[in-house]
Amino acid sequence: MLRSQFEEDLLNLHNQFYEMGMLVSKAIHKSVRAYVQHDKELAKEVIAQDEQINNIEILLEKKSFEMIALQQPVTTDLRRIITVMKASSDLERMGDHAVSIAKSTILVKGQNRILEIEKEISEMSDSVKKMVDNVLVAYVKMDEKDARMIAAMDERVNQHFREIYDHAISAMKANPETVVCGTDYLNVAQYLERIGDYVTNICEWIVYLATGKITELNSNRAQ
Amino acid sequence: MLRSQFEEDLLNLHNQFYEMGMLVSKAIHKSVRAYVQHDKELAKEVIAQDEQINNIEILLEKKSFEMIALQQPVTTDLRRIITVMKASSDLERMGDHAVSIAKSTILVKGQNRILEIEKEISEMSDSVKKMVDNVLVAYVKMDEKDARMIAAMDERVNQHFREIYDHAISAMKANPETVVCGTDYLNVAQYLERIGDYVTNICEWIVYLATGKITELNSNRAQ
Repeated sequence: MLRSQFEEDLLNLHNQFYEMGMLVSKAIHKSVRAYVQHDKELAKEVIAQDEQINNIEILLEKKSFEMIALQQPVTTDLRRIITVMKASSDLERMGDHAVSIAKSTILVKGQNRILEIEKEISEMSDSVKKMVDNVLVAYVKMDEKDARMIAAMDERVNQHFREIYDHAISAMKANPETVVCGTDYLNVAQYLERIGDYVTNICEWIVYLATGKITELNSNRAQ
Repeated sequence: MLRSQFEEDLLNLHNQFYEMGMLVSKAIHKSVRAYVQHDKELAKEVIAQDEQINNIEILLEKKSFEMIALQQPVTTDLRRIITVMKASSDLERMGDHAVSIAKSTILVKGQNRILEIEKEISEMSDSVKKMVDNVLVAYVKMDEKDARMIAAMDERVNQHFREIYDHAISAMKANPETVVCGTDYLNVAQYLERIGDYVTNICEWIVYLATGKITELNSNRAQ
């Protein structure tokens, strides 16, 4: 059976979205590794590769627009294209947060380190990476159930954040020399936490795709 | 001259977008006032009113979708609708950040305060509010020049952030009792800084509306 032009274009769009997502996932992983290992070269790599992510977003934007204008899709087809447009903005911002973590690595001031907190940040980034990787698959499969499950994983990420917060505050209170690195840890943890929020957004788009309903999955996520 | 159905719908869409923006602007202003004045009642008001903002976003989303599906606009008309969809997500997240600031007010722990930093936060929020109010007008006028000028104002907001950062770090180093309130100040300042980033996003949508080109206005904004 021949695919219609529209289906062909949509398949390409989804493949590029997935590719963009994988680049973002790698960027997040690399940026946290660079941060924890104080690897400025790796951090620079993350910053340099962000352009590629931004370029795919612009490409997706153009392609989506053209498809709507030229092929005038309705109902489900239109919804699928609009969702690519929306969700690719979320991916792009996740990439920006990876860049922010990479920049923290390069700008790192002072020599103080708290290895226990760095370990927690690594673990938090593993949880976040799992969410990111899973959401890309759920997106392609348009799987509402998976989307809801992935959004629920954000609770674990938020829990990591609270633990890191408590440890960093205790450390800073106990030793003023750790104030700069402590707030830096909180920053990085907050970027990761926000990446989890963006994944939750994408989960909401998947639910929208599958059901046509706009739903808020974790109403307390903006805390 | 009679307006076409499309023009009528577009005008309604723009009016609702503007209304949503004004609610967001008020929410930001109120949340910072509540924070600085430790006014938990006002903070609760901000949290309660966020539902209204979210409802307008859902309405705009539905309306835009219907307009595309039923009236199949092309080129500039299509671009205007897509921009409403994109920019209303930005507004919604700005509203979420106001809620986060309001929640900080309610959850405030400890009795320590640093009045000088609270004054700086107030000033920072004035700069942010100016950006928000101006961008709504620029949006309705589709004014590219204004959009670029407003995006440039984000530099002042970032400068406020750096000043607050330096003061908070110094205070926390000098007195461990200020560690909790210091990190809290940094949090609120960061929410404001991100609201500035969202305004910059909307400025980019305005440039896109006016020129058809996707442009990054402050490439260093994710720092």
